[in-house]
Amino acid sequence: MTVITGKRIFAVITGASRGIGRQIAISLASDVAGDSAFLLLARNVELLESVKKQIQDVNPNVHVAVAKADFAEQESIKGLEELVNSVTNGLTIETRLIFHNAGTIGAVDKPCIEISDPTDWHNYLQSNVVAAVTLNNALYKLFVATSSAPIFVINITSIASVKAIPSFTQYAVGKAAREAYFRNFALEVGSAVRVLSYSPGPVQTDMVEEIGRNSYDAEMRQHFSSPQTVNTPTHRRRLTPEETVSKLIGVIDKNDFENGGRIDFFDA
Amino acid sequence: MTVITGKRIFAVITGASRGIGRQIAISLASDVAGDSAFLLLARNVELLESVKKQIQDVNPNVHVAVAKADFAEQESIKGLEELVNSVTNGLTIETRLIFHNAGTIGAVDKPCIEISDPTDWHNYLQSNVVAAVTLNNALYKLFVATSSAPIFVINITSIASVKAIPSFTQYAVGKAAREAYFRNFALEVGSAVRVLSYSPGPVQTDMVEEIGRNSYDAEMRQHFSSPQTVNTPTHRRRLTPEETVSKLIGVIDKNDFENGGRIDFFDA
Repeated sequence: MTVITGKRIFAVITGASRGIGRQIAISLASDVAGDSAFLLLARNVELLESVKKQIQDVNPNVHVAVAKADFAEQESIKGLEELVNSVTNGLTIETRLIFHNAGTIGAVDKPCIEISDPTDWHNYLQSNVVAAVTLNNALYKLFVATSSAPIFVINITSIASVKAIPSFTQYAVGKAAREAYFRNFALEVGSAVRVLSYSPGPVQTDMVEEIGRNSYDAEMRQHFSSPQTVNTPTHRRRLTPEETVSKLIGVIDKNDFENGGRIDFFDA
Repeated sequence: MTVITGKRIFAVITGASRGIGRQIAISLASDVAGDSAFLLLARNVELLESVKKQIQDVNPNVHVAVAKADFAEQESIKGLEELVNSVTNGLTIETRLIFHNAGTIGAVDKPCIEISDPTDWHNYLQSNVVAAVTLNNALYKLFVATSSAPIFVINITSIASVKAIPSFTQYAVGKAAREAYFRNFALEVGSAVRVLSYSPGPVQTDMVEEIGRNSYDAEMRQHFSSPQTVNTPTHRRRLTPEETVSKLIGVIDKNDFENGGRIDFFDA
């Protein structure tokens, strides 16, 4: 039995204005039943409004709310219940999903021995780890209190959480920390929730362009600024957002992944 | 050729007042040549003074400095060079070692869905991740500028960085983040330094007692408050600090570990 295709879902997606997050919203919309609901979060609300429009072009019967929110700030959490209710009110939701997709690449412009400012680390960890934890805990509690519909928590992770890559130090630290959180979350909440860390592979997004421009490492700049055509275990071909999100939705729909585990695009 | 046994070493050890850190200091002292030097760091300087005395009982010719330092605070870094010089001055050091051992267990008294306060996360990450990064980068630069003697960076990690354990969420997040940092550090600095994340196994220390007293999980409380006699892959026997530190020193001395990799007591 599928959990997404043809179902009335409620999906919360962070970093939904661009790249993989935007693609998750649009791909989900084309798979789900009408009277599904989406809550799209990102810093740029204008871009979110355009994603909302694209969703409703694909599936006119879905309900979409967009909001700018920083969940490293406790104040944002207070408005969360209202936001969720505003978009799900009156709907009979069959599957609830949280996509923790928001993330920044970190200080790729300098080697790790030059990333020593505690304030810089604080800011990076707040927006890439603590914000996800805070939002996740608040939504989980809200979901558990609202209905017994299944809950899926999807953490968008990276190969960087398990493998060193030059100039990806902050990214690696953030992703490894987040993955550890969700692994423990899966264990502690048990069967009440299905948790997956999904590593999307090297997807052609703005982040890739940023690395191509700004990495301190000349080889990384070259690698990420040129199109990739090779496809070997060490040099993966660049993926489209559609490709990786399609595989992710397939993995969730099949729903036989190890709870709290990690799955990479190239292994799924 | 050994890198510790019989050598004139300079070792910086964080969290050196108790448990594994204290044992590292004492075990090293008994293996190394006179005219070695130790810099012991911890919050409790009184306890450090007693470790200093124990070191000099074991090997009267070694030089020991102790200091209270919080390397999440930039001010502490400024005094670091002077502190290092004060204890190494005039010595011909053959091997330099940094043991990132300091760490706290985190909020074991509540499930992860109750650990949502950004300030609490900030404080945990500052003292368990950022402080290690900041100290490491400062010492690395200082070492590279001082001599060409080999540098070993040892990150004391945990099984929790790769495996979920109930009530260990903050610990897991901190250890996973730190391990990712040192994996990337090893890659970026390359052959200039040998980097190892060592998982010491379940060692009988104050931390074990704290879990036995304070874990929110009844099974964990029982497991950690009673002595362990079984030894299976899932229920490891409790180790003494001597046992695990002896194995760690052996691994460093042999010096054939994968740079930036992790080694567990039970696999070494």
